Amino acid sequence: MGRYRLDVGYDGTAYGGWQVQPNARTIQGELERALGTITGETVKVHCSGRTDAGVHARGQVAHFDLGLGRPCHELLRGINAILDPDIRALRVLPAPADFHARRSAAGKEYRYFIWNAPVMQPVLRLYRAHVRRPLDAAAMGAAAARLEGHHDFSSFAANAMRPVESAVRNLFKLRVSKRGPEITISARGEGFLYKMVRSLAGFLIRVGEGELAPEFADELLASRKRTAVVPTAQPQGLFLWRVWYV
Amino acid sequence: MGRYRLDVGYDGTAYGGWQVQPNARTIQGELERALGTITGETVKVHCSGRTDAGVHARGQVAHFDLGLGRPCHELLRGINAILDPDIRALRVLPAPADFHARRSAAGKEYRYFIWNAPVMQPVLRLYRAHVRRPLDAAAMGAAAARLEGHHDFSSFAANAMRPVESAVRNLFKLRVSKRGPEITISARGEGFLYKMVRSLAGFLIRVGEGELAPEFADELLASRKRTAVVPTAQPQGLFLWRVWYV
Repeated sequence: MGRYRLDVGYDGTAYGGWQVQPNARTIQGELERALGTITGETVKVHCSGRTDAGVHARGQVAHFDLGLGRPCHELLRGINAILDPDIRALRVLPAPADFHARRSAAGKEYRYFIWNAPVMQPVLRLYRAHVRRPLDAAAMGAAAARLEGHHDFSSFAANAMRPVESAVRNLFKLRVSKRGPEITISARGEGFLYKMVRSLAGFLIRVGEGELAPEFADELLASRKRTAVVPTAQPQGLFLWRVWYV
Repeated sequence: MGRYRLDVGYDGTAYGGWQVQPNARTIQGELERALGTITGETVKVHCSGRTDAGVHARGQVAHFDLGLGRPCHELLRGINAILDPDIRALRVLPAPADFHARRSAAGKEYRYFIWNAPVMQPVLRLYRAHVRRPLDAAAMGAAAARLEGHHDFSSFAANAMRPVESAVRNLFKLRVSKRGPEITISARGEGFLYKMVRSLAGFLIRVGEGELAPEFADELLASRKRTAVVPTAQPQGLFLWRVWYV
């Protein structure tokens, strides 16, 4: 009997997101099915943070418990033998009994990738948001800098959020970099609200298009209200990049 | 009436390569079908160099002639409206009557991408060769340096090559770079033999695995004979990166 840490990467294109749900293939569902097949146990897999349909992960972290302990390399090989190649177990490690993929996480990094050119490069079509209008990456960077730090991020949360929940989060770092037609937004924080990164990206894209000024970020934060001013950017640009633990 | 230059990118995964053939969707076939639909003419599309099944292109260049001249932006938009998103016309430009996508090319760059880790990252699975054993990128670079320049590349040509053809090519540059688990081989030359880049990659991977010494490159070149010592690396790692004209 024991707890395991599972690092996993996935191409979210064909999945209805992380969480098990009826009538859709999900990452959690596939992992639980694979672990169930290998071990003969009913295994529940808990992740560091759920990802939505179409969102990818390069370094998602999860944990699960087994009644009967097994060698990690056998679990790794077994999972990957069963799963389709668009989900891979990258590592399986023994974990202390109090390790919790979400609650033990010290921070997470998401990256949001934008292809900013009139025409999309075909090989990237499933892994980048496509923005045709030229974006001003410097303006996006200036807006991003105003969003870093400890704030109430209600204006960047999904409307569905329960009002009782605190929307205060510590956004360690929000950076924008540009290389040719590719613009990358990197967001590091100790935790994120539901759809927060796609909302930040949606806002930064509007700033890049010149529709909103970078300074408007201050006003948005102060308003603490999600409105249509902030769109939710396309899911396929988003990657859960890594999760770290202390 | 006039000649056009067409820059095109494609995800080669679902195609039987560039060249029209029976019982397979091909890049050339799709482009000719799209241009035929738009113009009502029978259009033949000539490329800078054919790519094999599963090989990708970021910057393939082609040319075609139309009996009736049309605005380039209309052709661009029309082609992309018809094609599936795994092929995109990136640019359409008017070209002089003597422009020839292959014969006018001054050089081409291919890139070959290797994911060198025990487990593949799912989002890259269709766009990287997967090599599990740790590769010595420095040894690969040393071997690559010995292959640069003006040589008879018979040892790196497909066996099917007609013996009458000259296998002498000028390989301007063959470089190996490593960034984390990703190893990139960049090959620039004025022209390449059939399957030459994948054969160079296959050889460099064997060197990286420690099975062949970098110095063996000299012996291979001198032998002017293709043998099983040089494998043809997987197609999905290969990208036609760009073609340049003077």
